Amino acid sequence: MNWPLFRTKDDTRGLEELNTDRKKVVIVGAGFAGLSAIETLHDKNFDVLLIDRHNFATFQPLLYQVATAGLNPGDVSFPIRTLLRKYPKVRFRQGELVKITPESNLIELEDGSRIGYDYLILAFGATSNYFGIKGAAEYSHAIYTLDDAIEVRNRIFHQFEKAAAHGISDGCLTFVVVGGGATGVEMAGASAELCDRALRTDYTSIPRSLVRVILVEQRSKVLEVFDEALSEYALEELRRRKVEVMLGSTVDEITPDTVHLKGGVEIPYGILIWAAGVGAPPLASTLGLPQGRGGRIVVNPDLRVADHENIFAVGDIAAATSGDELVPQLAQPALQEGRHAGLQIINLAQDLPTSAFSYKDRGIMATIGRRAAVAQLKGGIDLTGWLAWMAWLVLHLITLLGVRNKLSVLINWLWHYVSWGKGPRVILGG
Amino acid sequence: MNWPLFRTKDDTRGLEELNTDRKKVVIVGAGFAGLSAIETLHDKNFDVLLIDRHNFATFQPLLYQVATAGLNPGDVSFPIRTLLRKYPKVRFRQGELVKITPESNLIELEDGSRIGYDYLILAFGATSNYFGIKGAAEYSHAIYTLDDAIEVRNRIFHQFEKAAAHGISDGCLTFVVVGGGATGVEMAGASAELCDRALRTDYTSIPRSLVRVILVEQRSKVLEVFDEALSEYALEELRRRKVEVMLGSTVDEITPDTVHLKGGVEIPYGILIWAAGVGAPPLASTLGLPQGRGGRIVVNPDLRVADHENIFAVGDIAAATSGDELVPQLAQPALQEGRHAGLQIINLAQDLPTSAFSYKDRGIMATIGRRAAVAQLKGGIDLTGWLAWMAWLVLHLITLLGVRNKLSVLINWLWHYVSWGKGPRVILGG
Repeated sequence: MNWPLFRTKDDTRGLEELNTDRKKVVIVGAGFAGLSAIETLHDKNFDVLLIDRHNFATFQPLLYQVATAGLNPGDVSFPIRTLLRKYPKVRFRQGELVKITPESNLIELEDGSRIGYDYLILAFGATSNYFGIKGAAEYSHAIYTLDDAIEVRNRIFHQFEKAAAHGISDGCLTFVVVGGGATGVEMAGASAELCDRALRTDYTSIPRSLVRVILVEQRSKVLEVFDEALSEYALEELRRRKVEVMLGSTVDEITPDTVHLKGGVEIPYGILIWAAGVGAPPLASTLGLPQGRGGRIVVNPDLRVADHENIFAVGDIAAATSGDELVPQLAQPALQEGRHAGLQIINLAQDLPTSAFSYKDRGIMATIGRRAAVAQLKGGIDLTGWLAWMAWLVLHLITLLGVRNKLSVLINWLWHYVSWGKGPRVILGG
Repeated sequence: MNWPLFRTKDDTRGLEELNTDRKKVVIVGAGFAGLSAIETLHDKNFDVLLIDRHNFATFQPLLYQVATAGLNPGDVSFPIRTLLRKYPKVRFRQGELVKITPESNLIELEDGSRIGYDYLILAFGATSNYFGIKGAAEYSHAIYTLDDAIEVRNRIFHQFEKAAAHGISDGCLTFVVVGGGATGVEMAGASAELCDRALRTDYTSIPRSLVRVILVEQRSKVLEVFDEALSEYALEELRRRKVEVMLGSTVDEITPDTVHLKGGVEIPYGILIWAAGVGAPPLASTLGLPQGRGGRIVVNPDLRVADHENIFAVGDIAAATSGDELVPQLAQPALQEGRHAGLQIINLAQDLPTSAFSYKDRGIMATIGRRAAVAQLKGGIDLTGWLAWMAWLVLHLITLLGVRNKLSVLINWLWHYVSWGKGPRVILGG
């Protein structure tokens, strides 16, 4: 066997270090968790290789704004090599993980390359969970990747163009969002605002009454994990924006043009967004690692994968716990888990013991629309409305800026965000 | 027959006008020529319908900058409905022209809709001319649409990622540009700059010596239509940027990985750009209209299609003449032709005679790279270098701003343009 396989033959960057006995850390996935691990490890005595199937990182919390034409794709995505410029010792490889051979500390990529590691961090994120509902995977859109968001945006405007050209057939301009969690609420709110603006400025021939945004939620309220008052505020704000919120409604089956609810209600739709659950990508079940609820990889308290000494799983793909509780699949825990895994690797490399991950919950937020959001902050502080929206905005800008580390994004983003009132700028794909 | 078919059933906008006996003008194509016709006609006594296969207009002169990662797709494309907001009487329909029935003044779209017109303006632009060279259409990229430009950009960076991961195989990082006219020179110059920047910042493991940019030109000089001194300056500047300019070289055949020149020279390539000739899109030959050189639609001096009283052809698709000379396929003539067609329709509607089109050539320009361009202005003024580059920049900004009519583009563009020195921001497609 060729060993070590960590360097590819043409890679002369950092050659001197690679010939030393630095430990090799391979990180799979350039999301919040993976990038946060890099921030922790880049200036320590490691050779770090980041692997991602894309050559760009995506700021997932704002993808729904790309989908609803509030932002452009370039505003929420950053070339990984640009991000890594500040970490000269971290290298990047575009590729897809297909196999781990823990016995020999090797991973294999889709192109057949094998790469050796001393420590492996799995941070390849999550995807939709359709709970086996018939037709859900085929006919609905989820918004986990930049391509997903662009596809939804294209679909929305194709429907508008179709309606403008051929008239409005049943349901053709009905947006159905399944799932009343933060993602569903954000998507429903933004869709309603998009419809208002698009009809006012660009599709003046379409009566607003023929455009429907419907949010379907199984439980008796939206934003279930939030305090009662915030959840009620969100419901009210959604309804004020003409979102038809259907609580206590369960999807039974989805056909190409109709959502069938349990109990016999049928909703003809033009666009269907699936925001009902987070699941593990197919990759997770092919790696031979233990999986828990929703396909998440089971990890020990220190975030190492059960029964593996030198493999960590962090972010949405990991069933991380803090105390006895399962950590939610959000950006904040992902950032903290990535950092924790990095710190444990620093410990392990010095033969020091690892410590258990503990999630510091600073609060949760969701935005319903412009000037309307809910924030439930650490210490029992609940915010709604304008103040919560500003908090949401500032928080996302700070995080975005931290990742991108360039003023350009801030300017771009603010500009687009502020000027959005003039109507969405929409470019359809080919 | 349902007549008039001009209004689609749901279109209530401008209802009152449509029931009057205003003349109906249908414009096919939202490029420079089509939009310029609209500017001329929008406030006159006409019902104007614009048809385009995309829902956005593209600023073609800067597409090569999207292809070479200097600009983002959104910087050079504008939603048509946004552009038309200032013309409330002009309507838009996304669709593809498939047939004209001049006897009954009807056009048909790909979805089967038939639309009546009193005057028809064809302005659907041009595409590549491969002159029947084997393999050219299959294996080369041309840059006429936004999708083309994105495809080229993806291809370039896929090649870089491939080289970074697997080493540089023969020709894998060789950019071949066929055609030494303005487009070819711009593309070759921008590619060379992109390579320099990308290697310096993001692909530091790839030696510059293994990256080649080759410009293949059949004639003995580049920029043939420019004055000798400008053409020589361009050649020099290209070579200073390490572009290998192969003059007097004719492409014989193209295979998936090699360009075969007449005389036996073979160039293995990674990316091949076709900038050797402008031709008519397939649509042009299916409409039953007379075609001239390069498939261009033959028009009378007043820009009406030969033998057709009320059909105009303008822009790249028209074989327009000025005096006895064929007008070049560029933005400036397209703008002037669109305006001229509009004015003739105003005349015809009042039973006034039409006049012959006369092209006012204000000069031609081409940019080789940053701070290097050539401009050959009306009155015998030749500019090169920094001054020509500034002239090019200002001219394009003014035109871009005129089309978009919004400050946002200017800011965006300047920002991206100025910050490009930090390296290209590249997002690959899925």
